[in-house]
Amino acid sequence: MARPLEYGEAILLWEEGKGRTFLITLERGGEFHSHRGVIRHDDIAGRPEGVRVLSGTGYRFIAFRPRAPERMMKVRRRTQIVYPKDAGWLVLALDLFPGARVIEMGTGSGAFTVLLAQLVGREGRVYTFDRREDFLSNALSNLERYGLRDRVEAQLLEAGAPFPVGDVDAVFLDLPDPWLAIPPADAALAPGRPLALIVPTAEQLKQAFGTLAGAGFVALEAVEILERRMLVRKREGVRPFERMVGFTGYLVSGRKALPEAA
Amino acid sequence: MARPLEYGEAILLWEEGKGRTFLITLERGGEFHSHRGVIRHDDIAGRPEGVRVLSGTGYRFIAFRPRAPERMMKVRRRTQIVYPKDAGWLVLALDLFPGARVIEMGTGSGAFTVLLAQLVGREGRVYTFDRREDFLSNALSNLERYGLRDRVEAQLLEAGAPFPVGDVDAVFLDLPDPWLAIPPADAALAPGRPLALIVPTAEQLKQAFGTLAGAGFVALEAVEILERRMLVRKREGVRPFERMVGFTGYLVSGRKALPEAA
Amino acid sequence: MARPLEYGEAILLWEEGKGRTFLITLERGGEFHSHRGVIRHDDIAGRPEGVRVLSGTGYRFIAFRPRAPERMMKVRRRTQIVYPKDAGWLVLALDLFPGARVIEMGTGSGAFTVLLAQLVGREGRVYTFDRREDFLSNALSNLERYGLRDRVEAQLLEAGAPFPVGDVDAVFLDLPDPWLAIPPADAALAPGRPLALIVPTAEQLKQAFGTLAGAGFVALEAVEILERRMLVRKREGVRPFERMVGFTGYLVSGRKALPEAA
Amino acid sequence: MARPLEYGEAILLWEEGKGRTFLITLERGGEFHSHRGVIRHDDIAGRPEGVRVLSGTGYRFIAFRPRAPERMMKVRRRTQIVYPKDAGWLVLALDLFPGARVIEMGTGSGAFTVLLAQLVGREGRVYTFDRREDFLSNALSNLERYGLRDRVEAQLLEAGAPFPVGDVDAVFLDLPDPWLAIPPADAALAPGRPLALIVPTAEQLKQAFGTLAGAGFVALEAVEILERRMLVRKREGVRPFERMVGFTGYLVSGRKALPEAA
Repeated sequence: MARPLEYGEAILLWEEGKGRTFLITLERGGEFHSHRGVIRHDDIAGRPEGVRVLSGTGYRFIAFRPRAPERMMKVRRRTQIVYPKDAGWLVLALDLFPGARVIEMGTGSGAFTVLLAQLVGREGRVYTFDRREDFLSNALSNLERYGLRDRVEAQLLEAGAPFPVGDVDAVFLDLPDPWLAIPPADAALAPGRPLALIVPTAEQLKQAFGTLAGAGFVALEAVEILERRMLVRKREGVRPFERMVGFTGYLVSGRKALPEAA
Repeated sequence: MARPLEYGEAILLWEEGKGRTFLITLERGGEFHSHRGVIRHDDIAGRPEGVRVLSGTGYRFIAFRPRAPERMMKVRRRTQIVYPKDAGWLVLALDLFPGARVIEMGTGSGAFTVLLAQLVGREGRVYTFDRREDFLSNALSNLERYGLRDRVEAQLLEAGAPFPVGDVDAVFLDLPDPWLAIPPADAALAPGRPLALIVPTAEQLKQAFGTLAGAGFVALEAVEILERRMLVRKREGVRPFERMVGFTGYLVSGRKALPEAA
Repeated sequence: MARPLEYGEAILLWEEGKGRTFLITLERGGEFHSHRGVIRHDDIAGRPEGVRVLSGTGYRFIAFRPRAPERMMKVRRRTQIVYPKDAGWLVLALDLFPGARVIEMGTGSGAFTVLLAQLVGREGRVYTFDRREDFLSNALSNLERYGLRDRVEAQLLEAGAPFPVGDVDAVFLDLPDPWLAIPPADAALAPGRPLALIVPTAEQLKQAFGTLAGAGFVALEAVEILERRMLVRKREGVRPFERMVGFTGYLVSGRKALPEAA
Repeated sequence: MARPLEYGEAILLWEEGKGRTFLITLERGGEFHSHRGVIRHDDIAGRPEGVRVLSGTGYRFIAFRPRAPERMMKVRRRTQIVYPKDAGWLVLALDLFPGARVIEMGTGSGAFTVLLAQLVGREGRVYTFDRREDFLSNALSNLERYGLRDRVEAQLLEAGAPFPVGDVDAVFLDLPDPWLAIPPADAALAPGRPLALIVPTAEQLKQAFGTLAGAGFVALEAVEILERRMLVRKREGVRPFERMVGFTGYLVSGRKALPEAA
């Protein structure tokens, strides 16, 4: 529902005609110095989303709240991130819902944490873990910027250490050695609930898959998602873009089965 | 969090070793007659998700709640459905969140309605419209089966007619002629908020894209999502599956910009 | 150049409207019993390629010589074959030319042998090897059928055994364990000339690649080729087909470098 | 078969370790000034293909004759070229063979002409046409460089003008408006023989396809070829490259059928 853009919010400036985007946080008296001239934050605050603003040199920008894909792509990066194309698949594989309690191991830059926090909502909880304090603090600052900090608990943890929470609705692993975290993930998951992970190579895919099967996970699936952007122009006509992202990672999901009854 | 499987719930039976799945609704005294013998519903009710049950002939099945992709794939179909691979992209493009109010035009079999209802949660609202009463009633019965009926308002509507709700957070169009619904969608959307649609051909992609641009939508994107399933076996090794879904549709998204200030 | 269709030639019958194709060998007095009635060989022989003939029940078929892709797809199969989409890449990687002398290890059903024989021509030579006599004799009968038998020498050989020819222009390996054949391939190749191979899994790709590098091959490349068939219809519009072949194999090529000069 | 590298030949220098390649024409006393120091042509001439040579600063390069893909990619470009991935498919679709007589309309930079000339051989003939003299002369100089000039006849021609040759084995069209050249292609083709073309957009695909059908061509096919390069490294493991060419064009083929017998 329509709410005016407020000071303190992260805002996406979309350069009309060019499609370049810039993320700013609105501040009283603030200025964004673009390559197309200065944009005054006070021209944006209090106005509705989708409003056009002019730079000092007369170029038009449109002010939006970032959507999920832009929030993810615009995090301050310290690591590779989970890309939106893969995140979409993971949302369904992890069966996210408002109120869900979810573990993420391997916070990284927090791009996927941002999406998890958005989708579990104020009544849900994202427990995110990383072995590097600097990654955690950068990720929390990204969450803070998007107003999603309150749904997230972050903690230092080595891969393989037990998770300090249990009975969770889903687990996501984004680690160099995800198999190390599978036994603790198994212990923390509510029965029947899904685990998903991302790995960058065929060898890691095989090892992760095998470890999941050995730990009793079932309904295992592995996929790769390709996103082809299409060029649609009146004159040039319709065709895929000439360049595309060729690969980001293999995605795996499975579900925790209970051990055989005696 | 762990809750025992209950009578009245839709349950996915996963055939161990084979991976075939069957969706049943648990009923007191109910029986599922599989090709592998009879499974008694009373053996499932009251037990935790992920439990193994035996058919009368000794085959093992595991009882799960369906996740989002299975809920979508298992709707009773009267139409083509939005596939999970595309739905994941749409979740992000539509920037869904708990509490969101969303319009869907072209209910079809309700597969995507089920996902929308899951993600907007009890405090959100899905307004879904179709021109065919039989489609609506089938879709509502699918939603009912998954316990998601209460979040959805369904209504007969012709493409191009004004929507009876406004100031919504997102609009999704799945119609033969989606351009007809773009002006009413524009009127119903809160400023700045996203619209997305799916079309099956390059020609329709072009027409939808052009109509959106003409209506003042910006940040237009068109993509196609390919899901490659990977075979991961100890002996056979890792490789993509030999068969894949080659195409389902082109996905488009854009955002409502406000008209130029005077 | 135009030559009439002759008795003894393999002819492709293309069912008008349906696009189904049938391969027959023209014989005096011969009959092809299709699901659409009988077609008399004598109605085809002596007529130009592209001629329309009627079945006994009035259905139209068009008689063509098979092109390379159809020759490959219509071999009598005893094994998996190299698919045309991959064969095209291999033609370039192997740098084929009229008069070339080429080794193929792993004749299989001879689909790729047929293409090699076509492209090296009457002055070239294809030396093809397999460990199974029944495969060789089936492949030779496929070559015979297409009139390409005279360019091919076939011989029983185990993977790893030295090739009985040398100084060849290119080597192609299609074997379960292609790395076994790399040292003999190295010995048989003229300096600088290309070797290519096909493998079905990521693990085999890695092993083959590593063995090539270890044997001193350079300019190594590995690719996968995807062919998307497009549906083009006036009414339905343009879009990729809904089904596609998801995977056939990984293709590798490299070139023989001379050892370091002393 | 092994022949020493000769003065006057186009040679590919492959930078060891880096994989960068440079195309030079060997000249007596010639020098190649690379970013890694000078390489003397006289160190290469008379030596076998695959030989390692040292630059003045001690870097190693390997001297190869270019293979078909490298010849194509290294033409001096005045236009978009047909890429090797597409060329492979076209070789099969056009059913090339030694001795074939082939028309190419739209010479462009001559990349595909080079491949055609290689595959039809000394007894074949490539008739190539373009409306721009500067394109023809650049293409002929590319052919000259590769020693393939003698198999090619080039001529100025506007799209739609009749071809000055007939009874050819195959026709390839690479034009902005390929439908203009379909009637003359039909007239020039031997009965039953294939025509293929490449177009950059869905709209052009539709128009070309429709024109072919209208002109009586049958067995129409349209495809798109995707080449995924695979990264294969001991440490990093096996995975597709992160970047790929997303699109080059749609490929169409069909065959000339004879008009209905009276």
